[in-house]
Amino acid sequence: MGTRPWFIAHLGFAYYFLGVVYLAMGLVMLALELFALLLRESPWGFLVGAVVGLLLGLGFRRLGDPHHEPGRAEALLSIALIWLLVPVLGAIPFHVAGGMPYLDALFEAMSGFTTTGATALSDFSHFGYSLFFWRSLMQWLGGVGFLVLVAALLTHLAVAGRQLFFAESTGVQKEPFTPRLRTTARSILKVYAALTLVAALCYWAAGVPPFEALCNALSTLSAAGFSPNPRSFEGYSPMAQWFGTLFMFLGGAGFVLQYRLFFTCDLRPLLRDVEFRFYTLIVLVFSLLLALFLMTHHTKDMNYTWGEAIRHAFFNVTPIVTTTGYASADFALWAPAAQAILVAAMFVGGCAGSGAGGIKVIRWLVVGAFVRRELVRSLHPQAIIPLRVGPKSLGEEVMRSVAAFIALYLGLVALGAVGIALLENDLVLGFTASAQAVGNIGPGLGEVGPMGSYAGLEPLSKLILIFQMWAGRIELVPVFLLFSPQLWRKLRG
Amino acid sequence: MGTRPWFIAHLGFAYYFLGVVYLAMGLVMLALELFALLLRESPWGFLVGAVVGLLLGLGFRRLGDPHHEPGRAEALLSIALIWLLVPVLGAIPFHVAGGMPYLDALFEAMSGFTTTGATALSDFSHFGYSLFFWRSLMQWLGGVGFLVLVAALLTHLAVAGRQLFFAESTGVQKEPFTPRLRTTARSILKVYAALTLVAALCYWAAGVPPFEALCNALSTLSAAGFSPNPRSFEGYSPMAQWFGTLFMFLGGAGFVLQYRLFFTCDLRPLLRDVEFRFYTLIVLVFSLLLALFLMTHHTKDMNYTWGEAIRHAFFNVTPIVTTTGYASADFALWAPAAQAILVAAMFVGGCAGSGAGGIKVIRWLVVGAFVRRELVRSLHPQAIIPLRVGPKSLGEEVMRSVAAFIALYLGLVALGAVGIALLENDLVLGFTASAQAVGNIGPGLGEVGPMGSYAGLEPLSKLILIFQMWAGRIELVPVFLLFSPQLWRKLRG
Ligand SMILES: [K+]
Ligand SMILES: [K+]
Repeated sequence: MGTRPWFIAHLGFAYYFLGVVYLAMGLVMLALELFALLLRESPWGFLVGAVVGLLLGLGFRRLGDPHHEPGRAEALLSIALIWLLVPVLGAIPFHVAGGMPYLDALFEAMSGFTTTGATALSDFSHFGYSLFFWRSLMQWLGGVGFLVLVAALLTHLAVAGRQLFFAESTGVQKEPFTPRLRTTARSILKVYAALTLVAALCYWAAGVPPFEALCNALSTLSAAGFSPNPRSFEGYSPMAQWFGTLFMFLGGAGFVLQYRLFFTCDLRPLLRDVEFRFYTLIVLVFSLLLALFLMTHHTKDMNYTWGEAIRHAFFNVTPIVTTTGYASADFALWAPAAQAILVAAMFVGGCAGSGAGGIKVIRWLVVGAFVRRELVRSLHPQAIIPLRVGPKSLGEEVMRSVAAFIALYLGLVALGAVGIALLENDLVLGFTASAQAVGNIGPGLGEVGPMGSYAGLEPLSKLILIFQMWAGRIELVPVFLLFSPQLWRKLRG
Repeated sequence: MGTRPWFIAHLGFAYYFLGVVYLAMGLVMLALELFALLLRESPWGFLVGAVVGLLLGLGFRRLGDPHHEPGRAEALLSIALIWLLVPVLGAIPFHVAGGMPYLDALFEAMSGFTTTGATALSDFSHFGYSLFFWRSLMQWLGGVGFLVLVAALLTHLAVAGRQLFFAESTGVQKEPFTPRLRTTARSILKVYAALTLVAALCYWAAGVPPFEALCNALSTLSAAGFSPNPRSFEGYSPMAQWFGTLFMFLGGAGFVLQYRLFFTCDLRPLLRDVEFRFYTLIVLVFSLLLALFLMTHHTKDMNYTWGEAIRHAFFNVTPIVTTTGYASADFALWAPAAQAILVAAMFVGGCAGSGAGGIKVIRWLVVGAFVRRELVRSLHPQAIIPLRVGPKSLGEEVMRSVAAFIALYLGLVALGAVGIALLENDLVLGFTASAQAVGNIGPGLGEVGPMGSYAGLEPLSKLILIFQMWAGRIELVPVFLLFSPQLWRKLRG
């Protein structure tokens, strides 16, 4: 063992984990290969993907060591590696069978697995059913991965304030997967799977073609937003749009609380939850405000009735707040006053126990409590005042983690906004593309609006966005640590 | 005494302080009255202002109590009151003699005393010399007030992390004006006055008409930006523009360090200062980047030589970073890529020991140190790591104050941006107008660009901006405390 270099010997968990994931992806692509053959669509994409996945998976698993207990550094590095290398593999079918340049294919796959839903497709006609299904499935699988990541690793490692979000985890435990966290993860996934199935049936019942109903359901509950229909939900019936709003709203709410609701018929924990109440309030206020501006600023060119305005308002606010990213109208064409509401909504994010991206409601509640406390402290500097959100009293380290997370988040949005604005020579595009990428939302404004595409951007802009989607999905810390010499020192030592 | 209501009996310091300031303003306006009479300009503005100021000043002084020792609550309330009521009085001449509606006059005066420099004037021909001089003088006086506020009260009260900025103040002292702070304030004001004089002479030497040279000097060192010339520095010689860049740069750097440089010929403290070095780096990098984009994006319509591009780049980056707000070109007409650099620069702010507004370089350095520490902590959760900026080790309460300040700052920018974008139906205008107001910068983009005016905005937008300029100048905490029941409880009790 001593003769193996440190990046093999010290990363036994990372390689083993990556190997298992690549083998699983290889098998999924093998199954999709059968689907493609059955439909007489190009077989090469999934074949190449499956072969590469299985071979590399076997190789990584041999390099790894299933009994190696990972330290914090290796665990965080593994998270960053998996979320980078899974899209690298998953992009292969888009490139080989879908005819996308590899950079665009990687953009699409990163957007898929991170549940962003920003597309680099401009012409939907090159894609067959099997590719569209892969595109939606990777979002659903990305959602599963994220939920497990949050319920287990991030909570355990106390990253980005995550220790706050499950009452079960009161501190840093020795075991990464305590029995309680395992139970939590299992109930979350149960809700996730059940709601996906119900959503697919509801969409179908509301007139959406069955294949699209299934694909849309896969990307609704994962707060992801890819649709096999280039017009997103624009062409569906009002009933389908209202169902979409409902399931997006549920997808952005905490799954643990919904488990109590759906599996034990207990509504009270949900209604008592401070985050859920604030989240509901935000969706209501933003939607009604938007409806008002749709009626006052679009009287001439759109002629919405109040019913239509309210439906479009709810259907376009909910996907932004929950970071799903669907649209029922091309809001890139709306009046700036209406767009301003959506831009503001980009910074909310869903609830912490969901698959939503963004900053998330609970972190804003922590910031609010913290700022209120500091204001009181400027009057009473010696007073010791606990930090409270709802009934919970939070430790200082939670507040610090949340503050650092938000600083990294806004810093990455700002840097990307300037970079993309410089590259694309467009302020609004730069700002909204950057904000949507870090929050894993999907659409921006201008050329990259909900009916637009990221295909036309500069390659460097696409690379920035790929980086932002990757970092944003795994809550930034694992990616920023890659730039810290401390991480490498710890891994080596 | 017991029969007087609490808002008289408990606010002896606030009334006395306000009375003295109003009397002083009354006297200044009386002097300007002579100036106006001499130039045969309308005498009514300054007369009404002086009479109101002297009468109210006497009244407030009678209500107040010179021996009343203010608590923290009363001190913070006094700061908020003074910075609101001084513009309310100072606006009178603009309204009476300048023919501006009172809301516009208040906007202009708030913009003046807060050293913002955003103008609600659209037609400069209604204003005589005396009004223009008043407009520049209020900026210079606002600068004096701010420097004293920072050196004494905010540092003493440890508000917004201010205890960090003078090595002299190691904690919260009993006396608001310790001998050391008094010496500090005196050296700061010496540098401020001396540099103003030198700037006026240099501008004059570079061909600026003497009256404009004086007015511009008054608003350069205060980082304020009003110019009696509607084209700001656009019409002046390249030499005058380079002088402008130099004095803006000095005006945005710490005055204590410059005291050592100019009065004891010791350059080393300045060069060793982490904040000054970082500030210089930012100005250089942003300017050279802007020069590059001016050359690549304006080849057709502007035809700058490299020399011109570099001059315009430095002359337009420096006023934004230092929050002065001058311009040598209408950057609202530049390509968005060039504007993006200026929008990013809006969030820097000058150095802490200057009259500049904005977040300020030192606070960003604190954030950077904090985020780096939290990243290391996610690897070593039990480690105790001191927070360092340069050689200084900072207490946790400094970090908390800075974090709360930045949260309030960005929150106020975001709220204002959405509000103004909704009112004006313009995203870029809303965002930049809001960001410039909280940072006391002056110009935004679009209609409110450097050659534009805020006159055409909705009254509610103007009120939002007035609130933002006011809150931004006194470092937010005193204004936000007005909404805290704790403040009123403490004042009453
Ligand atoms: K999404
Ligand atoms: K200014």
